Amino acid sequence: MSPRLTRRQLFGSSALAATGLLATSGLDVGPASAAAVSTPFFHDHQAGIATPAQDHLVLATFDVGDATRAEVATVLDQWSTAAAEMTAGQPIGSTLPTSMPPADTGEALDLGPANLTMTIGFGDSFFSEQLANRADRPRGLVELPSFPGDQLDPVRSGGAIVLQACANDPQVAFHAVHTAKRLALGVLVPRAIQLGFGRTSATVDGQSSARNLLGFKDGTNNLRAQDAADMARYVWAGHEAGPAWMEGGTYLVNRRIRMRLELWGATSLEQQQAAVGRFRASGAPLSGTHEDDPVDLAATGLHAVPLIPVGAHIRVASPTANAGEKLLRRGFGFADGIDPVTGELDAGLVFLCFQRDPTAQFVAIQRRLSASDTLHRYLVHTASGLYAIPRGLEHGQGWGSQVLA
Amino acid sequence: MSPRLTRRQLFGSSALAATGLLATSGLDVGPASAAAVSTPFFHDHQAGIATPAQDHLVLATFDVGDATRAEVATVLDQWSTAAAEMTAGQPIGSTLPTSMPPADTGEALDLGPANLTMTIGFGDSFFSEQLANRADRPRGLVELPSFPGDQLDPVRSGGAIVLQACANDPQVAFHAVHTAKRLALGVLVPRAIQLGFGRTSATVDGQSSARNLLGFKDGTNNLRAQDAADMARYVWAGHEAGPAWMEGGTYLVNRRIRMRLELWGATSLEQQQAAVGRFRASGAPLSGTHEDDPVDLAATGLHAVPLIPVGAHIRVASPTANAGEKLLRRGFGFADGIDPVTGELDAGLVFLCFQRDPTAQFVAIQRRLSASDTLHRYLVHTASGLYAIPRGLEHGQGWGSQVLA
Repeated sequence: MSPRLTRRQLFGSSALAATGLLATSGLDVGPASAAAVSTPFFHDHQAGIATPAQDHLVLATFDVGDATRAEVATVLDQWSTAAAEMTAGQPIGSTLPTSMPPADTGEALDLGPANLTMTIGFGDSFFSEQLANRADRPRGLVELPSFPGDQLDPVRSGGAIVLQACANDPQVAFHAVHTAKRLALGVLVPRAIQLGFGRTSATVDGQSSARNLLGFKDGTNNLRAQDAADMARYVWAGHEAGPAWMEGGTYLVNRRIRMRLELWGATSLEQQQAAVGRFRASGAPLSGTHEDDPVDLAATGLHAVPLIPVGAHIRVASPTANAGEKLLRRGFGFADGIDPVTGELDAGLVFLCFQRDPTAQFVAIQRRLSASDTLHRYLVHTASGLYAIPRGLEHGQGWGSQVLA
Repeated sequence: MSPRLTRRQLFGSSALAATGLLATSGLDVGPASAAAVSTPFFHDHQAGIATPAQDHLVLATFDVGDATRAEVATVLDQWSTAAAEMTAGQPIGSTLPTSMPPADTGEALDLGPANLTMTIGFGDSFFSEQLANRADRPRGLVELPSFPGDQLDPVRSGGAIVLQACANDPQVAFHAVHTAKRLALGVLVPRAIQLGFGRTSATVDGQSSARNLLGFKDGTNNLRAQDAADMARYVWAGHEAGPAWMEGGTYLVNRRIRMRLELWGATSLEQQQAAVGRFRASGAPLSGTHEDDPVDLAATGLHAVPLIPVGAHIRVASPTANAGEKLLRRGFGFADGIDPVTGELDAGLVFLCFQRDPTAQFVAIQRRLSASDTLHRYLVHTASGLYAIPRGLEHGQGWGSQVLA
């Protein structure tokens, strides 16, 4: 995926300005380009996966309700038409007489594309007798097991259809989901909407690692979208996935992870760093001094104690501990207020990751994390979803004709 | 309030870049300054009122619980010390041994001040026998009447203390409230946290009018912070307000206004424009052609029908209809997901306004709006709060010593 931006424009985006990268980059680039940056909608792969992570997320799920196959296909085609318009910074539809409701709801009219991407996916319940598409169910769409400590909200979890809108302007991302919901009126049933802010992972070279709400740099050793070999090996599904539209697609796992910030805030810096396996200030692994130093799991200190503790997150999550497996993480922070029961913050990480084989990748890694990761005791998973993400659309093709032809 | 930024820096802020103003302004300013912009904490008036509206809001309320006057005063003093540090882009406190929890929670460590402002206010329940400060209750702190159509959530409404954090980076605003909650642990009881995005009002000359979630430009005729005479007349309280710390203070009204976006989206553009009193595309009043054209309430068209209808929002809310009264509006959009009962969007406007006399200003105007404003049928007020906002602090003074001396 090559977004329509030069390196200069990329570094001039408000994303990077807002995260302070530019304060140290020495570049002096007009931010006039920030709102104008766009990523092409039609491509081999859907946008919003290998796209450099934007600043804001609006993630929506829908159920099919009583709709027929034809009705659902029509809405999906309308969605992709609208997505092509909105991601280009255009209002949807045409200008109608003023005696009619406007085609576009208007709240993003002056905001530019703001690098909006819209990514669609389908959960297990999409493949049904009702839609006569059980045979199209992608093979990787397994039922996720429950993991120790899960406290899943059923409404925030699952859903037949997921729509991930990411943009560098929150109102642009909201407009995308608002529009989809409006186009689906009377056909699809809205299930949940989750907002996220401040990308937590660098997904391309040159993006600085942002800090998550635990205060630690996150995503240092993430897959990089420029690495075509890694993307092919770990992210893009092949023909083994099932239906033809999954070749070049992937699978999205969504975990809403509440961070126990009050407990974390009462934990010593030493213990925090031991739980993560990195120094907080620099982001360097406890075996090194710079953020990008390799994670040396064998390094030991006094009395042969491992510098990166046995239960450190970066050890338990490492490819070494996981048969070489990796994920493309693309998460966002969230803050949904105060838990009325505990009085604690309902805040944390909308963990989104893409992979070609959810069982071998997310499930295997998460089993290990929930069993052995010291950090896990500070986290509560409160929602879960797995979705098959079709390949990208060709010009003129629609999501309905792609998956419900 | 003169923030520490030049006009050049102001226009280079990511706020404006994100809303697309710079795309048309012709300015080419390095965004390196965006994260570095700061507004001084110590000033005659609190920051976050006349400060040019930022992009993100985190609004928190707290109750006093069982705390003593001395305990509350200590927390308030800690808050203002932390606010001075955070608004300058510094972590709070000093570096502690790694065997202790870090003083600062760390999630904003690399993000710069991002023009963070923190504004404190006190609701009616703050003035109590328990805190021995009933006599200090500012005179304007009346009980807000209930208005037709109100559907107020008691938890989201009210509260003894309000803390408004605004910044151009959502994680910086979150960090401010996270820090306050942590410092208050065991003394104050967290009540509610509301996030907002995308300022909906221009509050200074030179800021473009942003669109609210109804798709209309908002705040065109807002008070402008540069207009010292208007600010003195409409916003800053005088010695009549009661305690000395209110002279130079003001009152904040918070209304969480849910927009009935599904109904609005089924309304013709003609009816939408008649309800607002402005053209959607340009923002011009229906009596004019440009956004800044004066609102001519007397202008008529065919058959002497008023161009701006009798029930139009800008007519009913106008100073002409309200004994000359005005408010300083400083609202933000919100999107809190799907209403589980109706399946509709729980989204709209965190309406925040500042005024010197809530009864003569907000209450009188809102009575008129809830009775006659056509737009009102598209709005549901779901939370309400009125808070006395003390004057600013002098260097070395704390919020606790200011109000609980």
